[in-house]
Amino acid sequence: MLTLKRIAIDTHRESIAYLSRDCPLYRAEEFLALAKVEVTAREDRGSGPGNGPGSGLRLPAVLNIVDDPHLLGANELGLSEEAFRLFGQPEGMPVWIDHPKPVESLDCVRAKIQGRVLSQAEYNAVIRDVAARRYSKMEIAAFLVGCASFMTAAEVLSLTRAMANVGHKLDWDHRPVVDKHCIGGIPGNRTSMIVVPIVIAHGLTIPKTSSRAITSPAGTADTMEVLARVDIGTDEMRAIVEKTGGCLIWGGRVNLSPADDVLITVERPLGIDTREQMVASILSKKVTAGARHLVLDIPVGPTAKVRSRADAVRLRKLFEYVAGELGLPIEIVITEGLEPIGRGIGPILEARDVLAVLRNEPGAPADLRERALLLAGQLIEADPAVRGGQGMRRARELLQSGAALRAMERLIEAQGPSSLALVPGPLGYDVPAPQDGVVQSIDCLRMARIARLAGAPAFKGAGLDLFRKTGETVRKGEPLYRIHAGLQSDLGFAADLAGRDNGYVIAAT
Amino acid sequence: MLTLKRIAIDTHRESIAYLSRDCPLYRAEEFLALAKVEVTAREDRGSGPGNGPGSGLRLPAVLNIVDDPHLLGANELGLSEEAFRLFGQPEGMPVWIDHPKPVESLDCVRAKIQGRVLSQAEYNAVIRDVAARRYSKMEIAAFLVGCASFMTAAEVLSLTRAMANVGHKLDWDHRPVVDKHCIGGIPGNRTSMIVVPIVIAHGLTIPKTSSRAITSPAGTADTMEVLARVDIGTDEMRAIVEKTGGCLIWGGRVNLSPADDVLITVERPLGIDTREQMVASILSKKVTAGARHLVLDIPVGPTAKVRSRADAVRLRKLFEYVAGELGLPIEIVITEGLEPIGRGIGPILEARDVLAVLRNEPGAPADLRERALLLAGQLIEADPAVRGGQGMRRARELLQSGAALRAMERLIEAQGPSSLALVPGPLGYDVPAPQDGVVQSIDCLRMARIARLAGAPAFKGAGLDLFRKTGETVRKGEPLYRIHAGLQSDLGFAADLAGRDNGYVIAAT
Repeated sequence: MLTLKRIAIDTHRESIAYLSRDCPLYRAEEFLALAKVEVTAREDRGSGPGNGPGSGLRLPAVLNIVDDPHLLGANELGLSEEAFRLFGQPEGMPVWIDHPKPVESLDCVRAKIQGRVLSQAEYNAVIRDVAARRYSKMEIAAFLVGCASFMTAAEVLSLTRAMANVGHKLDWDHRPVVDKHCIGGIPGNRTSMIVVPIVIAHGLTIPKTSSRAITSPAGTADTMEVLARVDIGTDEMRAIVEKTGGCLIWGGRVNLSPADDVLITVERPLGIDTREQMVASILSKKVTAGARHLVLDIPVGPTAKVRSRADAVRLRKLFEYVAGELGLPIEIVITEGLEPIGRGIGPILEARDVLAVLRNEPGAPADLRERALLLAGQLIEADPAVRGGQGMRRARELLQSGAALRAMERLIEAQGPSSLALVPGPLGYDVPAPQDGVVQSIDCLRMARIARLAGAPAFKGAGLDLFRKTGETVRKGEPLYRIHAGLQSDLGFAADLAGRDNGYVIAAT
Repeated sequence: MLTLKRIAIDTHRESIAYLSRDCPLYRAEEFLALAKVEVTAREDRGSGPGNGPGSGLRLPAVLNIVDDPHLLGANELGLSEEAFRLFGQPEGMPVWIDHPKPVESLDCVRAKIQGRVLSQAEYNAVIRDVAARRYSKMEIAAFLVGCASFMTAAEVLSLTRAMANVGHKLDWDHRPVVDKHCIGGIPGNRTSMIVVPIVIAHGLTIPKTSSRAITSPAGTADTMEVLARVDIGTDEMRAIVEKTGGCLIWGGRVNLSPADDVLITVERPLGIDTREQMVASILSKKVTAGARHLVLDIPVGPTAKVRSRADAVRLRKLFEYVAGELGLPIEIVITEGLEPIGRGIGPILEARDVLAVLRNEPGAPADLRERALLLAGQLIEADPAVRGGQGMRRARELLQSGAALRAMERLIEAQGPSSLALVPGPLGYDVPAPQDGVVQSIDCLRMARIARLAGAPAFKGAGLDLFRKTGETVRKGEPLYRIHAGLQSDLGFAADLAGRDNGYVIAAT
């Protein structure tokens, strides 16, 4: 018998067990080849292998071998931080390790790899085990890649249902709860921060959670954080929504789709980004968030996530089918994704644009305002009291009257205002137009990459400020955009990249 | 800048970098979401991202975050044992971390996932990066599962070539070098330990490497270890082969297929066992081992790896095509796999059977002897001096004359004799026949599982001793086989499993 020890290593949603190579009780190499062990608290150990499932408290974990007695004694078993928490036993507890009982749902994964269509029950089993951290990352990769080769629409529905089932479901009394979502990929597209206050001002409930940037220069959570606290858990979220009618918070502490939180730790680094996983991920979260009406924005453009209108229509139909079967009314808006939205890219620069729209400033970016009004209008039409076709007009009234701005101020107050000054990065570099002409397009991916190099989102003031958008004329040598940074080295990296390709296509007039 | 520290954790062929959550230089969470970082020694760092490949010394690694200052300081970067060795820099060295430069060959993996046929150059790129530990385990899983959906025969050839190219190639002067291999799955099938001495006695060279058991009760390396040392590296292997004409060693320290050594750390735990990976794994090793003639044993049976003769023929053709294109003459022998071979299952019990055959003892298992002679005969026919069809007769002569036994004794002497007593586990339990009748079949998987539970291969004397084989009559209550174990608890587990299903099918006469 070994004694349990917490190892203060965060292995990012994978359970790791640490065993000393000098452990006298187990031949470490034997377990190592199988990669996984099963950790059992003593009282729960059955009379031996083959005896069916035990009474609980069995944790599958990937095994690492320790060669340093200061880190782990020969008679100790270490668990990484999250694994220790999942296992739920105190340090010093007697534990055993065993060859792992096979995670039975892995048979479903193998069947999928061999080309079979899986049932609802099979997706339920896989997703339950994924959410319970029973899968190692390589097993998750096997599942995702197996699904990537093909999935029927019915399978996407099953996957979505399974993911929603393991989520922490939010229920909202009385009021109609709506939600909006954009599939992403367009820098500066911070419509949520305008749509949510408008919708709240109209009297609908919109408990909006957003992500932080992973590979983009800012997520809505990063930009909202410039104005208010966003790192908020379920109970506080509920209080804020009850008080104000909505919220604009980071989704990381609201347990809407725990399986998705795990799957994404493998999807992101692998760069697996299938339509099927996207639909299941988004809709499972909206279902558990309690939404009764969803507006979804799919931008289409040569450098957007969806490259052609035909692809957008296929994606739309899949969203409509799954949402329909789940009983979630959905409106899909296919929008232009030819260039970034607004002028700013990066948390502070985007927050500046959002506030300019909410304050009806004369220089506020019209594309950001009009897109937000379009989406807010669609949501407002979910209100039976609004005449068909009048949603966008009502949204514009709420914006122009200052009602939306006041709703935003209430939101900020409820979430906790930030003390951050709205000042862009102090170092600047203007990227000049290489020729006279009219801007034809702006590369979204390129702009995101330059803004990342400039330091966004880690440095809130870093990013880009666009002086020209498509259709506008420019003369050779005039600045196309300004790079803002906090560090000279970041500015140098970003300027170098812009120097090789500034992301603008300019046609001679 | 961080200072390098070795962390004494063995992460089994995956490079892990450890960073303190309190590190003032990097926002750990930002890297964590991407799962991977790139570790760079300071002098090799280019002038920044986007500047193309640096001058070397860049190690991609999976990131773990450390919350214990005793384990890792805020300004230190830890590397797991193998990663530290691969990186090759001393502790205290200044290092940087970066967002990883994308491992470019992962684009090939994504293309494979999307259903494309990959070229030789693409397989070369993937396998080079796999062997260099540039892939995390989830990336390896993505590659394997992507390949599992389909691979053309030409792709299997490309994969095999790529795997052989990164191996440490052995060259042998003068003599004809032969090799044999069995795809496995049949307990007790220790023909190599008889074939190798016969072939050596004939004067051919056979540098045989074998695996240890992973999920079976014994690999050839485990059984040979009962008689001699098998944990032998390349230089010593070469000396032994030069001296005796062959060897029977564990392949783990001979670097024949480093990519396979990595792939298998994911294949095994995932239970992905495709024909294509099998062919590439086996043939890449045989090519780098310098074999000029290969005999391959494919057992077919209801509980063997290959279940039908049709499957065996498909597998045979794939082996023949790839080996043919590689210029490696191959003879494939499809054998019966209806039951275990020999009487013993487990290292010591199998070694006893092997010695009984080599010593021409009257009770020696005939099935083991005849199968070994068949395979040895095929190999001997690779000698141009042997008349066609006379190989098996020659093999029998070498066995019966004691020449093979003397060759085995020379091998044992050269590798280093073991001091282990050839005594089966002291605890025994006889599994009785539940009825009168004739044995129809014996379940290979069941026998393997019972023998594993009894303690094989970790406890060398543990395993099964079969008293009845197919075609033999038995009376109710007579023992079918004896379970040997070293611990009472192991004996209990194994006897329990045998009690639920003893693995024998017995038909009433």
